Amino acid sequence: MAGLTGLICPNLTPFNNDLSIAMDLYIEHAKRMLDAGCSALAPFGTTGEALSIGIDERMTVLEAMIEAGIDPAKIVPGTGLTNLQDTAKLCRHAIAMKCAGVMVLPPFYYKGVSDEALFEYFSALIGTVNSPDLRIYLYHIPPVAQVPVSVELTKRLAAAFPGAIAGIKDSSGDWENTKRLLTEVKGIAVFPGSENPLIDALKLGAPGCISATANINAEGIIRCYKAAGTPEGDRLQEQIRAYRLPFQEMGAIPAQKWVLSHQTGEPRWKIVRPPLTALSDAKGKELLARLESVLEPAE
Amino acid sequence: MAGLTGLICPNLTPFNNDLSIAMDLYIEHAKRMLDAGCSALAPFGTTGEALSIGIDERMTVLEAMIEAGIDPAKIVPGTGLTNLQDTAKLCRHAIAMKCAGVMVLPPFYYKGVSDEALFEYFSALIGTVNSPDLRIYLYHIPPVAQVPVSVELTKRLAAAFPGAIAGIKDSSGDWENTKRLLTEVKGIAVFPGSENPLIDALKLGAPGCISATANINAEGIIRCYKAAGTPEGDRLQEQIRAYRLPFQEMGAIPAQKWVLSHQTGEPRWKIVRPPLTALSDAKGKELLARLESVLEPAE
Repeated sequence: MAGLTGLICPNLTPFNNDLSIAMDLYIEHAKRMLDAGCSALAPFGTTGEALSIGIDERMTVLEAMIEAGIDPAKIVPGTGLTNLQDTAKLCRHAIAMKCAGVMVLPPFYYKGVSDEALFEYFSALIGTVNSPDLRIYLYHIPPVAQVPVSVELTKRLAAAFPGAIAGIKDSSGDWENTKRLLTEVKGIAVFPGSENPLIDALKLGAPGCISATANINAEGIIRCYKAAGTPEGDRLQEQIRAYRLPFQEMGAIPAQKWVLSHQTGEPRWKIVRPPLTALSDAKGKELLARLESVLEPAE
Repeated sequence: MAGLTGLICPNLTPFNNDLSIAMDLYIEHAKRMLDAGCSALAPFGTTGEALSIGIDERMTVLEAMIEAGIDPAKIVPGTGLTNLQDTAKLCRHAIAMKCAGVMVLPPFYYKGVSDEALFEYFSALIGTVNSPDLRIYLYHIPPVAQVPVSVELTKRLAAAFPGAIAGIKDSSGDWENTKRLLTEVKGIAVFPGSENPLIDALKLGAPGCISATANINAEGIIRCYKAAGTPEGDRLQEQIRAYRLPFQEMGAIPAQKWVLSHQTGEPRWKIVRPPLTALSDAKGKELLARLESVLEPAE
């Protein structure tokens, strides 16, 4: 992901009716996201229902993506689990597949753990993977993982492991935290985990953003990204923020899948794996109406 | 675990200095717990740092336990991960090893999920494992997993899958919840996840308890269990509750390991895997002093 800028899509994972991964839709959607102008894909993030997918399934999908012609230099798979051994296994596989990097959650089962212990965890991970090609993007998503990757921890890891610690995705939704990462941590790429602060983040040196809404609104976000620094950029920033809001309010993953199903005419896109719950059609139609009101000029 | 009563030990996992599993200590401790009178072992629970241990490591340890002569009819390994595929893999392995049952966490990454979706998850797990020998003990530990196994969900699962849903370990620490499980859910074994409510739970039909403190105080808890229904039982209940308290206050897993290291003279017992942090010797000595004051009659 070195030098990657712009919009990175944490692509959704489609399922068949029997809840197996719908590989046809997976590849089709991944390619469509790149065709739409996304600079890279971040499969197996929270949005990709990664933690509902088995280790072997993840490796199979990654191999199928590359087999289908997707450039691994444009893939940064999530590899973070609660334990070092299996996380290292997924990291090694991604490196063998020549992926641009890996997105790594902190171990998220035990709560209230110390930064010191998390530092030791990531140090041990880097030592265990033991490859000059390891490029870790830390994944800070406290609303879900509960265990944070603090600014202090990021700073310490970036200083101790230059190169191996390549960046961070900040999905805290807390602009103060993103701002601190952008201004205080040297030598790594700081991606906001949403398009909400895109323009402000770009001003402070962010290379772009990694946002779930890319699955639905890649063109809109990229238009804003390209207009950064102009009044049009500011107007588009407001628009993409308004477009994202209903997803945040209605359960982001099922809502995105419902809209994607509507956009593509493919019913399988509505399917989620438990413990998530699919959006009802009634809610989906309500969501569509809200999205249309955002895009059409209000009278 | 059918018919098992008494104290079940969620045994601690010892590590070597390089953080690999100390198999010699593991087997020695597991056998010691059974010799001390524990009726069964529940390896790979929260106390066993299960979520810090890789899938292959878990299977290797389970095989080593049985190889070493521990009766699989006395082993109920934890097999719950965040995804169905890998959880099913561990369940199938435990069944192949003829274990008495499996202890299964709800998928714990996504938060705020519905009982309906968790019901679907467990239904899909039972369908995927597809074995008449599957005996699931649900694992309710909301302080850590955050995702609960509610009384309503337990009731519904027990009614839908008699046999496959064999019981629940309630580590909520909330006696009202345990009482509701004991009085409202029919046909399954309800084990409190601590010795704190042992006497009261036995009165309501609990077969015993599954408690981390068994690793340190098996004899004390078993003495109380055997004296249930007598004034001595009530006195011992107070004593084992007081003995447990300092562990709860000082970080249960590192504290138990420190005391076990002290009891056995084995320094490796102090080691934890990150993201947990070992107890300092200063804290360990403070803990010992508190434990001694509980056991000696106060003047």
